Amino acid sequence: MDFGLSEEQRAIWQSAHDFASREWAPHAAKWDEQGHFPRDAIERAGQLGFCGLYADEALGGVGLSRLDATLVFEALATACPSTAAYLSIHNMATAIVARHAQPAVAQQWVPRLASGQALASYCLTEPDAGSDAAALRTQARRSGSNYCLSGSKMFISGAGASDVLVVMARTGGPGADGISAFLVPADSPGIHFGPKERKLGWNSQPTRAIAFEDVLVPENHRLGAEGHGFRIALQGLDGGRVNIAACSLGAAYAAWLAAQNYVQQRSQFGRPLASQQALQFRLADMATALHAARLVVRQAAAKLDEGAPDATMYCAMAKRLATDVGFEVCNQALQLHGGYGCTRDFPLERLLRDARVHQIVEGTNEIMRVIVARHLLQSPAILEPTA
Amino acid sequence: MDFGLSEEQRAIWQSAHDFASREWAPHAAKWDEQGHFPRDAIERAGQLGFCGLYADEALGGVGLSRLDATLVFEALATACPSTAAYLSIHNMATAIVARHAQPAVAQQWVPRLASGQALASYCLTEPDAGSDAAALRTQARRSGSNYCLSGSKMFISGAGASDVLVVMARTGGPGADGISAFLVPADSPGIHFGPKERKLGWNSQPTRAIAFEDVLVPENHRLGAEGHGFRIALQGLDGGRVNIAACSLGAAYAAWLAAQNYVQQRSQFGRPLASQQALQFRLADMATALHAARLVVRQAAAKLDEGAPDATMYCAMAKRLATDVGFEVCNQALQLHGGYGCTRDFPLERLLRDARVHQIVEGTNEIMRVIVARHLLQSPAILEPTA
Amino acid sequence: MDFGLSEEQRAIWQSAHDFASREWAPHAAKWDEQGHFPRDAIERAGQLGFCGLYADEALGGVGLSRLDATLVFEALATACPSTAAYLSIHNMATAIVARHAQPAVAQQWVPRLASGQALASYCLTEPDAGSDAAALRTQARRSGSNYCLSGSKMFISGAGASDVLVVMARTGGPGADGISAFLVPADSPGIHFGPKERKLGWNSQPTRAIAFEDVLVPENHRLGAEGHGFRIALQGLDGGRVNIAACSLGAAYAAWLAAQNYVQQRSQFGRPLASQQALQFRLADMATALHAARLVVRQAAAKLDEGAPDATMYCAMAKRLATDVGFEVCNQALQLHGGYGCTRDFPLERLLRDARVHQIVEGTNEIMRVIVARHLLQSPAILEPTA
Amino acid sequence: MDFGLSEEQRAIWQSAHDFASREWAPHAAKWDEQGHFPRDAIERAGQLGFCGLYADEALGGVGLSRLDATLVFEALATACPSTAAYLSIHNMATAIVARHAQPAVAQQWVPRLASGQALASYCLTEPDAGSDAAALRTQARRSGSNYCLSGSKMFISGAGASDVLVVMARTGGPGADGISAFLVPADSPGIHFGPKERKLGWNSQPTRAIAFEDVLVPENHRLGAEGHGFRIALQGLDGGRVNIAACSLGAAYAAWLAAQNYVQQRSQFGRPLASQQALQFRLADMATALHAARLVVRQAAAKLDEGAPDATMYCAMAKRLATDVGFEVCNQALQLHGGYGCTRDFPLERLLRDARVHQIVEGTNEIMRVIVARHLLQSPAILEPTA
Repeated sequence: MDFGLSEEQRAIWQSAHDFASREWAPHAAKWDEQGHFPRDAIERAGQLGFCGLYADEALGGVGLSRLDATLVFEALATACPSTAAYLSIHNMATAIVARHAQPAVAQQWVPRLASGQALASYCLTEPDAGSDAAALRTQARRSGSNYCLSGSKMFISGAGASDVLVVMARTGGPGADGISAFLVPADSPGIHFGPKERKLGWNSQPTRAIAFEDVLVPENHRLGAEGHGFRIALQGLDGGRVNIAACSLGAAYAAWLAAQNYVQQRSQFGRPLASQQALQFRLADMATALHAARLVVRQAAAKLDEGAPDATMYCAMAKRLATDVGFEVCNQALQLHGGYGCTRDFPLERLLRDARVHQIVEGTNEIMRVIVARHLLQSPAILEPTA
Repeated sequence: MDFGLSEEQRAIWQSAHDFASREWAPHAAKWDEQGHFPRDAIERAGQLGFCGLYADEALGGVGLSRLDATLVFEALATACPSTAAYLSIHNMATAIVARHAQPAVAQQWVPRLASGQALASYCLTEPDAGSDAAALRTQARRSGSNYCLSGSKMFISGAGASDVLVVMARTGGPGADGISAFLVPADSPGIHFGPKERKLGWNSQPTRAIAFEDVLVPENHRLGAEGHGFRIALQGLDGGRVNIAACSLGAAYAAWLAAQNYVQQRSQFGRPLASQQALQFRLADMATALHAARLVVRQAAAKLDEGAPDATMYCAMAKRLATDVGFEVCNQALQLHGGYGCTRDFPLERLLRDARVHQIVEGTNEIMRVIVARHLLQSPAILEPTA
Repeated sequence: MDFGLSEEQRAIWQSAHDFASREWAPHAAKWDEQGHFPRDAIERAGQLGFCGLYADEALGGVGLSRLDATLVFEALATACPSTAAYLSIHNMATAIVARHAQPAVAQQWVPRLASGQALASYCLTEPDAGSDAAALRTQARRSGSNYCLSGSKMFISGAGASDVLVVMARTGGPGADGISAFLVPADSPGIHFGPKERKLGWNSQPTRAIAFEDVLVPENHRLGAEGHGFRIALQGLDGGRVNIAACSLGAAYAAWLAAQNYVQQRSQFGRPLASQQALQFRLADMATALHAARLVVRQAAAKLDEGAPDATMYCAMAKRLATDVGFEVCNQALQLHGGYGCTRDFPLERLLRDARVHQIVEGTNEIMRVIVARHLLQSPAILEPTA
Repeated sequence: MDFGLSEEQRAIWQSAHDFASREWAPHAAKWDEQGHFPRDAIERAGQLGFCGLYADEALGGVGLSRLDATLVFEALATACPSTAAYLSIHNMATAIVARHAQPAVAQQWVPRLASGQALASYCLTEPDAGSDAAALRTQARRSGSNYCLSGSKMFISGAGASDVLVVMARTGGPGADGISAFLVPADSPGIHFGPKERKLGWNSQPTRAIAFEDVLVPENHRLGAEGHGFRIALQGLDGGRVNIAACSLGAAYAAWLAAQNYVQQRSQFGRPLASQQALQFRLADMATALHAARLVVRQAAAKLDEGAPDATMYCAMAKRLATDVGFEVCNQALQLHGGYGCTRDFPLERLLRDARVHQIVEGTNEIMRVIVARHLLQSPAILEPTA
């Protein structure tokens, strides 16, 4: 066992943190307030490789491990959890394309996605189907050398601004095995974007419903084999969940630092707030929870890197724990700021709103518990100290 | 002991709830989004007596008990916690004027305040002083038959829109006994309002800093005796806290109802969400917590109505508990809505943001614990089952 | 609404508290350690009426309201939660007999039960059936003018020491409607008592399994009509749950008082523990939770007294909340005592162990949530502020 | 970073777990009930090296890393947290002797301690001094070539049964720098042992007060330099806390496994408890918390192994978190067992009582928060993701 980061990993964190502090942090409040999707700031992230973190170097990616990538997302999220989270989704979609697209299609799209010149959306959720495969209704019917897509997707991050959609649609019977994945250019005829959702958080990324009305998709744009779509979607989500978890770590770390700083600066009853024991204890508990969540996130990422068969459970644990801790730390940090914490002059209320979203997206924390419990009941040995 | 509401009390709740459902609920989301202060909707509330709840009938008030008033605030807050909370502050300020102003001044202002034609702000907090009397720096120096006010106030609800300010300022030495209260018309020369604060919640009420630059206030506009200002301020806050607590109850009740309805409508894995045991348990725990908080709020209000010497402690308990429960219930209700809970198409995220503010205003929940602990350590008998 | 106790209610509390402090408190630790069932101390409680709290005065009871009775149980439990809880069970069984036995049988048993000369046990739970009526297997077959009982009961409080058993047994088909209730003298031939259970808490009351081997019970010993047994059992439990809840309040109050006293006596780092803010906050939160739980318990008792149709839900809420709060307050009070809290020289660890049992008996707190959720989902209006 | 155990580490866990399952588990309930200190079972543990885990091999120890040792303590505690915790204290004292005793004294004692033939106690706490160095009053006055000890110690694990005491006593002025450490044979004239404490948990290890009445200790029995005693004591506690934390992990793991098994065996309403979603969620959350705590404990141990300057903070975090999680997991596991969980026929109530003690010993969890907060406020960078 080794809990220390390597020099290289420290450098990854440092460069991502430097970038985010310089390029994102000064603007994040404005992006949130104006609902501005910072394409240019994302593209600059792409120049550092942050848009193709796991894609092969041959396709323009940087081929980082999942563990290394959590450092990038934690760093970016200290500045803007919302934009970092979109980048996590873009990377998830990009990795699916890099791994499952036919070579020519991969060659066409991945280099542009990995560099941030093109952006991607991940289209799984539907109005009546979140985590329930059986309820997925978007159809992809064969039509000559094309598939013809019809149906609708919901809560799609980046929709309306992104260039390419990774869409799960039903090519076969009911159930998970009837679902296939497709790469669909966002400007394909028959695609209609709904109005931009007005949301609690994640305001720097547009979220929209998408309607597919007889959208023709060439057969070679299918990703992976027919019937493999749900599996591909879930595989992507394992990594996506770890990354959202890492984004919550970043939000929490930023909030904790702000609170720690505030209580040392601000006085009440003639003494700095930091001298009040109850507030000290709270800072200590926040830090302990954050520290624990970090280890859990990194261990889950390491499981993914190993291709461990129980990685899905650890990713679900990490997503559940780190997003709950992330929200709670932001919430306590806001409280420690008193009235100032509720104003937009401090980052706390924005961090809180963004962190709140993470407890729901990419599988609600209830679904995470369903996943964890299923694994535990099937094989309790998974919790052995040597596991 | 009698835990049931009287017929009259039911009627109070019903009329407030009917009014709020009809006049406020359809617009609350818009008020929040646009930062609109609904003066007209508040004035219509005034026509029902909701702007002068405790003021004497002789002065145009309705002379309700504190307990009855919690029913009004809970009802109004089901529609818009932010506007209900402003109304609570307006009523607190109005009650101070009605009780402590010289008859002529009271006659001049209270009928207009009680009818909602004029609105009031309560000005205690300063940039460096929240709950710490010793740190209050706004000066009121004698100057002939006037006082001359200088200093600044912070986080003033209604500031810039209200007509009259109830201001605590220092007329004597350091400490609480050097503070007096004043009624100051908001258009007095030398008053400068800061920009509207951009906030997490309470967006239907403007919050601003106020600078007093040599503002002349006639001596007869002092409220109560010299040196009684802090006492008056705290007395007002006892009732104010119970009302903010009641506003949290209302937000929680609205959120709970929405969640309870949602889980019965929405299906997952082929069954209504309401059939999932873990969600049922959560609804049950939310309801139990809300029920408990309601009783605590009403008991504290009853203590105020009795003029009990330990009322301050019970009000602090009620504020701490009900605002924590209010936030938590809203937060769980949002979670039960999944992705929809984060959108502005549902009221959850607004209720959450408004309820969050309540844990901080009118004395943070940390200050509430300070107050409760002080009473308990001084006289533990206060917790006897017969107390 | 009126949250104050009447003079009479204060007197009830006071006399129960005086009695318990004098007759029980000095011995409770020894009863716990030695597993001693204090029959004599219970009989002395009977002399004050505490063994027949709800039985009619005509039958030797004192005919208190449920609300008044919670004061008795809270008071007794400050000295010994375990003995108080047994008394609650005895009263539940006694009330069932008083209400449902045929006059001659009632006349024979109730006066002795109400005076504490005879003691009763309540026999519902079976090895494979806790709260699940369908799983109840003890048979009561007609046999001439008798019923013949066979089967086994589990976790029976007082078993082996009590004189009379109130037994639920199946006289008909499967389901709740096939169950009837019986009064069975404990010395009836064919009754075998298992060994005394060794337990975490409730050590002053013996708990045993009971085997019924063809036990003949005269027909006139049936309580209520055939098929009404489960209904009678549940009705009894409504009151039983409120009383167990009150016992948790008593344990919590005793623990809180001890902690409050300890932190004022004990110094660390040269100052009394009571001066440490984090500990003050904890005392405040414990007191607030206890205060809230008390109101919830009393409101539920009042609902029972009214015969309100929703009383069952409020009793379940009260049991869940007050037993959780009771345990948590005892646990925090123990923690505030540091190492001393773990020793038997202080009452904390005993209070903790006894309070722990309450979260499980008379329907686990999980079953309480099932009950609460069922009522809420069927009629959400039950949570209206005017309910 | 590497989160996997090495083959050697798995073997360490396995051998400790096999030993504990075979030699301790069948007797742990009896040891607890009878207050039996299992010297023979500890000596058998010594034969496997578990009594001299960190002592040099030259002195008969096995020279394990701290990280490896946590695996031993977690494994032993699955069978008996109380005995495992005593072993942790014995190892702490043994390591102090091995490191700080003069060679001849070390040679005399360490081989016997490391083999389990002799047992040690750690004597820091006094009746009025827990974690407060300034309050330590036991005196060690020079008297020729001896020190003369007088004073008293409190809550000493193993006292009355152990052979050697590691005693902190004041040789100089007030404050931490006036304290020195001594090795004192337990049979030295003038040592008086108090009666065995009757306790909530840790019943397999005797706890007693010790009075030192002019006890002569040869100068060469001082451990380390004069004035270094408090430093030595704290250093020992860093490791001791990690080990107590590991004991809590073991208790929690055993409790979780039992609960996981119980819900699969036991039925309610015609289905196994394991099919109830709310119980599944609880098992999942328990497992997630345990998993997180494990990582935190191991990371803290690794910090100790590195001799990291911030190891003290991480040890305090680990002790706080893992002992809180340990208690909570045991408590939930007990709840999942319903009535059976409260009986001594199942291990839950014993695990709960033992785990409860861990939140208090070796520095209460409040003191842990004091330590964590002090480090964080002094150097917030300690929480950087790269720390």
